[in-house]
Amino acid sequence: MTKHREVKAALLGATGAVGQRYINMLPKHPYLHLEVLMGGESAGKKYGQAVHWLFPDAMDSAMAEKVVKQARPESAKGCDIVFSALPSEVAAEVESKFAEAGFIVVSEASAHRMDSDVPLMIPEINAEHLRLLETQKRKRGWKGAIATTPNCTGTGLSMVLKPLIDEYQAEKAIVTTMQALSGAGFPGVPSLSIQENVIPYIKNEEEKVAAEAKKILGTFKDGVIKPSPIEMGISCNRVAVIDGHMETLYAEFGMDISPEDAERTLARFRGEPQTLKLPTAPDQPIIVRRENDRPQPRLDRMAGSVPGMSVVVGRVRNGIDARSLQLTLLSHNTIRGAAGTAILTAELMEREGYLE
Amino acid sequence: MTKHREVKAALLGATGAVGQRYINMLPKHPYLHLEVLMGGESAGKKYGQAVHWLFPDAMDSAMAEKVVKQARPESAKGCDIVFSALPSEVAAEVESKFAEAGFIVVSEASAHRMDSDVPLMIPEINAEHLRLLETQKRKRGWKGAIATTPNCTGTGLSMVLKPLIDEYQAEKAIVTTMQALSGAGFPGVPSLSIQENVIPYIKNEEEKVAAEAKKILGTFKDGVIKPSPIEMGISCNRVAVIDGHMETLYAEFGMDISPEDAERTLARFRGEPQTLKLPTAPDQPIIVRRENDRPQPRLDRMAGSVPGMSVVVGRVRNGIDARSLQLTLLSHNTIRGAAGTAILTAELMEREGYLE
Amino acid sequence: MTKHREVKAALLGATGAVGQRYINMLPKHPYLHLEVLMGGESAGKKYGQAVHWLFPDAMDSAMAEKVVKQARPESAKGCDIVFSALPSEVAAEVESKFAEAGFIVVSEASAHRMDSDVPLMIPEINAEHLRLLETQKRKRGWKGAIATTPNCTGTGLSMVLKPLIDEYQAEKAIVTTMQALSGAGFPGVPSLSIQENVIPYIKNEEEKVAAEAKKILGTFKDGVIKPSPIEMGISCNRVAVIDGHMETLYAEFGMDISPEDAERTLARFRGEPQTLKLPTAPDQPIIVRRENDRPQPRLDRMAGSVPGMSVVVGRVRNGIDARSLQLTLLSHNTIRGAAGTAILTAELMEREGYLE
Amino acid sequence: MTKHREVKAALLGATGAVGQRYINMLPKHPYLHLEVLMGGESAGKKYGQAVHWLFPDAMDSAMAEKVVKQARPESAKGCDIVFSALPSEVAAEVESKFAEAGFIVVSEASAHRMDSDVPLMIPEINAEHLRLLETQKRKRGWKGAIATTPNCTGTGLSMVLKPLIDEYQAEKAIVTTMQALSGAGFPGVPSLSIQENVIPYIKNEEEKVAAEAKKILGTFKDGVIKPSPIEMGISCNRVAVIDGHMETLYAEFGMDISPEDAERTLARFRGEPQTLKLPTAPDQPIIVRRENDRPQPRLDRMAGSVPGMSVVVGRVRNGIDARSLQLTLLSHNTIRGAAGTAILTAELMEREGYLE
Repeated sequence: MTKHREVKAALLGATGAVGQRYINMLPKHPYLHLEVLMGGESAGKKYGQAVHWLFPDAMDSAMAEKVVKQARPESAKGCDIVFSALPSEVAAEVESKFAEAGFIVVSEASAHRMDSDVPLMIPEINAEHLRLLETQKRKRGWKGAIATTPNCTGTGLSMVLKPLIDEYQAEKAIVTTMQALSGAGFPGVPSLSIQENVIPYIKNEEEKVAAEAKKILGTFKDGVIKPSPIEMGISCNRVAVIDGHMETLYAEFGMDISPEDAERTLARFRGEPQTLKLPTAPDQPIIVRRENDRPQPRLDRMAGSVPGMSVVVGRVRNGIDARSLQLTLLSHNTIRGAAGTAILTAELMEREGYLE
Repeated sequence: MTKHREVKAALLGATGAVGQRYINMLPKHPYLHLEVLMGGESAGKKYGQAVHWLFPDAMDSAMAEKVVKQARPESAKGCDIVFSALPSEVAAEVESKFAEAGFIVVSEASAHRMDSDVPLMIPEINAEHLRLLETQKRKRGWKGAIATTPNCTGTGLSMVLKPLIDEYQAEKAIVTTMQALSGAGFPGVPSLSIQENVIPYIKNEEEKVAAEAKKILGTFKDGVIKPSPIEMGISCNRVAVIDGHMETLYAEFGMDISPEDAERTLARFRGEPQTLKLPTAPDQPIIVRRENDRPQPRLDRMAGSVPGMSVVVGRVRNGIDARSLQLTLLSHNTIRGAAGTAILTAELMEREGYLE
Repeated sequence: MTKHREVKAALLGATGAVGQRYINMLPKHPYLHLEVLMGGESAGKKYGQAVHWLFPDAMDSAMAEKVVKQARPESAKGCDIVFSALPSEVAAEVESKFAEAGFIVVSEASAHRMDSDVPLMIPEINAEHLRLLETQKRKRGWKGAIATTPNCTGTGLSMVLKPLIDEYQAEKAIVTTMQALSGAGFPGVPSLSIQENVIPYIKNEEEKVAAEAKKILGTFKDGVIKPSPIEMGISCNRVAVIDGHMETLYAEFGMDISPEDAERTLARFRGEPQTLKLPTAPDQPIIVRRENDRPQPRLDRMAGSVPGMSVVVGRVRNGIDARSLQLTLLSHNTIRGAAGTAILTAELMEREGYLE
Repeated sequence: MTKHREVKAALLGATGAVGQRYINMLPKHPYLHLEVLMGGESAGKKYGQAVHWLFPDAMDSAMAEKVVKQARPESAKGCDIVFSALPSEVAAEVESKFAEAGFIVVSEASAHRMDSDVPLMIPEINAEHLRLLETQKRKRGWKGAIATTPNCTGTGLSMVLKPLIDEYQAEKAIVTTMQALSGAGFPGVPSLSIQENVIPYIKNEEEKVAAEAKKILGTFKDGVIKPSPIEMGISCNRVAVIDGHMETLYAEFGMDISPEDAERTLARFRGEPQTLKLPTAPDQPIIVRRENDRPQPRLDRMAGSVPGMSVVVGRVRNGIDARSLQLTLLSHNTIRGAAGTAILTAELMEREGYLE
C-alpha cells in the first residue's frame, strides 16, 4: 500500500441498515477514521443505545459510545468526507446542504444518482467519471460536491457487463434477480410476506438497475457521460436470503463468444482500485467458479480477499447460440452493493486528490 | 359434465412424492377409480404404513388400507389405465413392459418423453398429439401404449407460450426459474443446503425444459411431430418454497405486442379440456393478475376452479422494446406440473376412446 | 344441529391480521351473518381495497364489496353481536362504548380479559363463566356487555390442562412455546429478525398466558371467579412458522399418572359446545397422535372436523417420575387461538339466550 | 500460553459434518497438527474432492490436498492423538481398535460415552474425570485409551447447570430444546420436512442428554464416577436454524435464588481450561446477556473470545417461586457441542501428560 493521508469521515444515516455496515467496516480501516455519526430521531443518544444492531459481529466499542449528532453541516466540522446512508426521500435536500457547505459527500442514496453532473461510481469500472465533480462544482457553485454509488442490484451486474462489453460487444442483457432481505432495510420485508414464498416485485428497482447500469458503463467525454447503448430487460424478485443478491444473466453479443473465453476474461478483469492497491479493493473483482452449483448466496457472498467485495460468477455457458451467453452472478448487496463501494470510492478520491 | 364410463386405474411408484399426489387427488375423482397401488420396497405392506406421507390433508382411508403390489403387469389386471410416477431410471423398462402387456400407460417419468412416437401431453395445448399413439402401437407392435406428461418446470411455461406463439409469433424465450423443493422429491434437497440460500442449478433440468417445450408446442402432421422453432434459454434455480414453480419469462416476437393485449390473450386461452369440460380442467388455464406483486407461490399456487391446475401470470410488461415482453408465471409443480396433467390426459383419452 | 335464530354480526378491526380470519370464516357460517365491517384508517373504503389480504384463499366477494364503516356504535345499528379484533391499546375504550350502547361484544383483545366481571371464555372449559355477564351489566350499569377470549398461546394450553386438572390434579405446569409469525400480526416480525433464527421473547406474553389460564380454569361461584391454584412457568419463543403455536408441557400431579391413561383422558375430553353440537365445535377438542414426531405445525394445524379448532397433542410420556408428565401440543393461533374461539363463544351465547 | 509440545493428530470420519468442523478449526491451531485424515468411501481420494464442503469459509488448501486414508490404526502411525468424528454405529469397534493399538482417542461418537471406565469430558466441568483413563487402560489391558465428549445438546446445558448445582443446589431441570439442522449431519433433515415447520422429536436425544449430563456432572471418587442426583425432563425439537442449539431451562433449587445472583454466578464461572489458558478455552465459558430478547442463534452462536466456544445465557428470571429459575441458553452445536470440546479435551490431555 502506498502512503496516504489520514481522512476524517462523518456518516449520515448511521443507525439504518446500510449505515450499520459502515460502522461494521470502517473501524478496521487503515486511514479512514469515522469521527462523526449523524442521525434523525437517534440524535443525542449514544449510538450503541440508539441502534437496532443487525449483525452477529460485536459493535466496535468506540462507535457504541459515540453520541449521535444532528444531520447538519456543523456536526461534521473538521471532517474530510461525509458518507451518506440516508433514505432517498431525505437525501436530496440534506446531501445538497452538505455539499454546499463545502463537504465531499459520497452517497448511497438514489436521490442524486441520475443527475447529469453527479458521478455514479464503481471504481473498477469508471474511475474517470470522478472528473464530473469539476463540472458539478462549477455548475452548482458549490465548494463541496456529491459522488454517488449505485443501487445494490446493479453493482454486481455492471461489474460483470463491463469486461463483456469491452471484449465481446455485449449488446443486450436480460436479467432476473433473486434479492436478499437486507436490501429492503430494517424492518423491511415482513416475515409473513416472504416465509415459504418469493415476491416477484421490488418497487422502482427494475427501472433503477437499467438506467444506472447504462450511466455507470457510459463513456466520459467533454465533461459529459454518454450512456452505454446496451439494451436491458430486468425482472426483480425477493427471496428469503439474508445477504447476497443472485442474478441470472442472458446476454447477446456482436460476435461469437465461447464460455471458456468469457470465464477467462471475467476472471482477469481488474480496474483502477487493483492498480492502486486500494485497501478495500479485492484482488479479484470477479471470481469465477466452475462447479455446476455455484455461486450460492450463503456460501459465496463473503468470498475473496476483501470479504463481500468480489462478485462471484458461475454457470457460464452459451445461451441460444454462439453469440449469446448465460451465467449466474452473486454480489453482497450491503458490502459491494453499498458501503464497500462507497468506501472504495472514498479511497479512490483520496488517492486522486479530491479530498484535499 | 357429459357421460363417461367408469375407469379403473393402477399407479406405479405410489409411495414417492409424485405418487402421493395421485393418492391425494384421485379418491375424489368422479369416474377414475384408483384400484391398484404398486411399489418397490413397499410391496406387500399396507399403503398407509409404507408411505412417508407428505401432506397436511389426511390420507384417504381406503387408500391407506390397500396393500401395495409388485410393479408388474399381472398386478394391474383388470385396470383400464396405469399411471406411472416412477423414478426415470426404472421407468424406461417397467413402463414398456406394461405397454407391451396391453396397458395404456400415462407417465410422469422422463424416460420416454422424447421418443419420437410417444406423445408428450398438455391437453390444453396438444390434444391432437394423442394420435401418435397409433404410430407407436404399430411401430412397436404393442397392444398398449405410453403417453407422457412433461417436466414440472416446462408445463406452466409451455402453457403461457402457446397463445403467445399462436397470436404474436413468439420467437425467443429467455426463462429463469425459482423452483420449489417438492420438485426434487423426498427426501430431496437437504435443509442444510437450501436454508437461507438459493441453489443455481438443477441437474438436466434446463435441457429437458427446452427440448420438451419444443415438442409440446410442435405440430402434428403425417404421424410425426415437428418441433416448434422457438429458441429458448433457461436458467433453473431452487428456492426454499414448498410447492409452486415461479418463472420469469422474457420473450421476443415477430410483431409489436402490447402488455394489455397479451394479458387479454393469456386470460382468454382455452383448450380441448375446457371445451370437453373434463373434470380436472380448470375454467381458466391461465389466470392473469394485474397487481404489481403477484403471482406469489404461497398465495397463488392453488388458485382457480380446480386448485393447482391453473397457471397464474402477472407483471406483464414490455421488455427492451415493443416487440418484446416480460412476465412472471407460477404453476403448481406437483399438480399442474405432474399428477394433475396426467389425470387430465387420462380424462382426455377416455373421452377420445383411447381407453376402450 | 338444533334450531337457532339468524344472528347479525359486526366486526371491529376488520382489516388486521385477526380481523381477516373472521372474514375468512364467517361467510360460510350457517347463521352468523357478518353485516358490518368497521375500521380506523380504512373507514370509507371498500374492504377488498382497504385490506392487505394475507390468505391464499380468495376473499369472499360480498365482503370485498362492503364499505368499511367508522368504529362507533351507530355503525353497528341492528346487529346482535359485535366481534372485536381491535389492537388492545384502542380496545379498552372502544369496546366499552359499544357495550354501554347496548351491544354484546365478544373481544379478542387483552384490554378487558382480566377484569373481574368479564368472562374469559373457552366454551369447552368454562361455559358457565358466561354468567359473569349478569354481574357485569349490573355493576357497570350497561345494557350490553363484554365477553373476551384468551391470548392465542394460552388457549391450547388451557384446553389440555383442563382434563389433566380435573382427572389427575395437575398442580404445576412448565411450558415452553414455539410460536408462529401470524401471532404477531402484520407486518409483525421483520424477516431479517427471524430468518434462520429463533427469538426467545414475546413482550408480555408469559405473564398473560399464566394469568389468563388461571382465570379460564377457575371456578365460578357466587358471581365470582376463583382462579385455579395451578402453578405455571412459561417461556415464549418465536419461530419461523406461519401458523400454529407449538408448546412443550411438563406437568406435575397430585397422584401417579400413566401416559396411556392421560392419552385416553385427553382424547375423550368434551365440553358444552360438543354437547350442544355448535357449528364451530370440533368433534374432538383434543386430538391425540401416537407417532413419535407429531404434532408438527405445518402438517397438523388444520386437523379435525372443524379445521384449526382442535388442539393436537403428541409425545405423551412421563416426566421425571410417575407423578409427572411431558407432552407436546399444537393449536392454530388465529383460529382456535383467536377468531374460532370467539365465534364459538358467540354460538354458545346464542344458544344460551345472551343475544336476545 | 505456557509451553507445550507439538502434537500430531489424526481424524476419523473426516468428510462428515462433524469431521469438517475439525478441518475448519485445526489448521489454525498453535500446536495440534492434523496430519492424517481417515474415511470410509472417501479413502484414496484427495480430501478436497471427496468432501461435500458445508462451510462458507474456504477449505485450508493443505487439507484439500491430503489423500484420505483407510480407517485403521496403521494409517495413523506416528500420531499422538486420534480424533473420532465417526457415526456411532461404526465408532464402537473402530475406536476400540485404535485404543488397543496404543492410540489416545478423543471421540465425538456416543458409542463409548456411557461406559463406566470412559470419561465424558467437558474440561471446564470435570477435568479430573480424565483420571478414569488409568482405570480404563488397566481394566481393558489397552496401551491406548478412549475419552469422549458429550452429545451437542447436553454440552451447553451441563455447563450452565454446573455452577447452579455447586452454588445453589439445583435439584430438578426441565429443559426444552430448539435444535439446529447441522446437529443432524448431512444430508440430515430433508428441507420438505422442516421448511415452515418444527419437528418435536429427535431420536434417542432426550435419553442421551439426561444420562450424559448426570455423568458429566458426577463426582469422581475411588476410580469411579458417581452420577449427579439432579432430576431431568427433556423435550427436544428441531427448528429451521443452521447452527446453534437454543434451550429453555426451568430449574428448582434447594434454596432461594435471585436472578441477579444467578447471573453473576454464571458469568463468573471458570474451569481448568481457563486457569491453564488452553488455546481453545474461551475467556468466559458462559456469557450472560441482559437484554430481553437474547440469546438468538444467528446473532450469538459465535460470541466470545474463541468463536463458538462460549455458552450464551439470557432471560434469567425466577420460575414459579423464589426457589426456581428460568433462563434461555444457546451453544454452538458443532463447535462447543462437538469439535471444539474435543479439541479442548486434547489440549487438557496434553497439559496433564496424557499424550506422552
